[in-house]
Amino acid sequence: MTEYKKILAAIDLTEESDQVIERARSLANLYNCSLDIVHVIEPLGYAYGGDIPMDLTEVQQQLEDHAKHYLVEAGKTYQVAVDQQHVIIGRPETEIHRLSEDSNFDLVVVGSHGRHGIQLLLGSTANGILHGAKCDVLAVRIH
Amino acid sequence: MTEYKKILAAIDLTEESDQVIERARSLANLYNCSLDIVHVIEPLGYAYGGDIPMDLTEVQQQLEDHAKHYLVEAGKTYQVAVDQQHVIIGRPETEIHRLSEDSNFDLVVVGSHGRHGIQLLLGSTANGILHGAKCDVLAVRIH
Repeated sequence: MTEYKKILAAIDLTEESDQVIERARSLANLYNCSLDIVHVIEPLGYAYGGDIPMDLTEVQQQLEDHAKHYLVEAGKTYQVAVDQQHVIIGRPETEIHRLSEDSNFDLVVVGSHGRHGIQLLLGSTANGILHGAKCDVLAVRIH
Repeated sequence: MTEYKKILAAIDLTEESDQVIERARSLANLYNCSLDIVHVIEPLGYAYGGDIPMDLTEVQQQLEDHAKHYLVEAGKTYQVAVDQQHVIIGRPETEIHRLSEDSNFDLVVVGSHGRHGIQLLLGSTANGILHGAKCDVLAVRIH
């Protein structure tokens, strides 16, 4: 029976991320395998660029700092070393596929969907990941 | 940390079903929890009814018998008792949701997608299940 060797938890930094990492941690413990966490920041330019001439560099940097800090804290709680924490800028589906292929993750754990706002986005991301995934995907139902 | 208590493997009866049940069996062993298997047969009437006046009852019955037999054999291989084997007629997404809610499954394991034919159908089913799921969904990448 094939065992998972490398698990990746993809999180959106809301309080719901805990449920995703918890589940991933539980599975990594059971399979006695490694756990990485990733957060993908969508470039602000995708949403606002072009129409309004603004310099978003500083805001982008703040988002990145926030994400790194969040992952460091989550890493402490869930025993994920700093070199297994990934903050990437890009489209979530694309970047998560790329990361999971390049680093040979065999299971990606994501939040399935929620009730509003960013959770909806996360829902469609879960779908996007499912479509192109070269590995197993566990969609955790957020309560 | 929440543990899975009831796992459901939804299979399409192709040879790829083995990978789905194997994964579900492995998880059920790790979480020391129960495992059920389900196959949903789409009514032939959905595809052919109306246009051509045919009595499909017998064909439908054959499909059902085939499915039950398949599940019995799979049940022997993967230690799933007969009363934990489900053959249901209907739309896969709807019926799998209904079953998982009615029987309080907390994880549904499905095949994610494949390269052609029935695998594509299975792919879209995995998506359909993900959308409406009230529980976690593990999409197993078929190799």
